[in-house]
Amino acid sequence: MTLAREKCVACRRDSPRVTPEEIDELHPVVSDWELTEVDEIKRLDRTFKFSDFAGALEFSQKVGEIAEDEGHHPRIITEWGRVNVAWWTHKIRGLHRNDFIMAAKTDGLYG
Amino acid sequence: MTLAREKCVACRRDSPRVTPEEIDELHPVVSDWELTEVDEIKRLDRTFKFSDFAGALEFSQKVGEIAEDEGHHPRIITEWGRVNVAWWTHKIRGLHRNDFIMAAKTDGLYG
Repeated sequence: MTLAREKCVACRRDSPRVTPEEIDELHPVVSDWELTEVDEIKRLDRTFKFSDFAGALEFSQKVGEIAEDEGHHPRIITEWGRVNVAWWTHKIRGLHRNDFIMAAKTDGLYG
Repeated sequence: MTLAREKCVACRRDSPRVTPEEIDELHPVVSDWELTEVDEIKRLDRTFKFSDFAGALEFSQKVGEIAEDEGHHPRIITEWGRVNVAWWTHKIRGLHRNDFIMAAKTDGLYG
C-alpha cells in the first residue's frame, strides 16, 4: 500500500471517521504507531528517538513542513533525544484516513 | 533584572536547586510562566499563542535554537496556534537559575 504517497483530502465536520474495518486495514501499514485515545478522541501516536536535541528539533521541523504542505497539523512534542508525534482530526474528533497518510509520511522522514 | 542576558552555567548532579527565596525573587521576572510540578519535579511552564501552525512552528524552532546555544533543553509542544514550553533541569530534578534565564530568553523571542 502506498499510503505515504497519497494526498490529504479537505476535511469537514461531517467527514467520515475511519471505520473499525478501515483501521484494521490501515494500522498494519503504520504499525509503529500506537492507537491511543485521549478525551474519547482516537489518535495515532509514535515516539521517534534521536541521539541529541538538534536531531530531534530538525525532525520536528520536517514534520511541521509536511503538515503545512498538506494542511493537516499534528501535535509535536520535542525533547532532548526524542520527538513524539500525534495525528488526529480535530474537526471530526477522531481518525480520518488523512491521519494514516500523515503517519506514513512521517515514518518516511525518519532515519 | 537582566535575567534574559545571563548565560547558563554548566550544571552537575550536585548543583543547587533554586531555594524558595530565590524562586520568590526570580518568578516575578518571568511572571507569565506557571510554576508546575510533574513527578515531584518543579518546572516553569508557559503556553504561547499564534494565529496559525506556521507561526507556532517557527517559534518552536527559535526556542530550540537558543536551547542549543545555551546547551540547556526544554520540552516543546507544538500545535496549531500554540506552543507550550517547559523548562527544568533534569540533572537536579528541579529548577536551577538556568531555567529562569531560559524562560526570560524565551519570552524575548515572543511577539
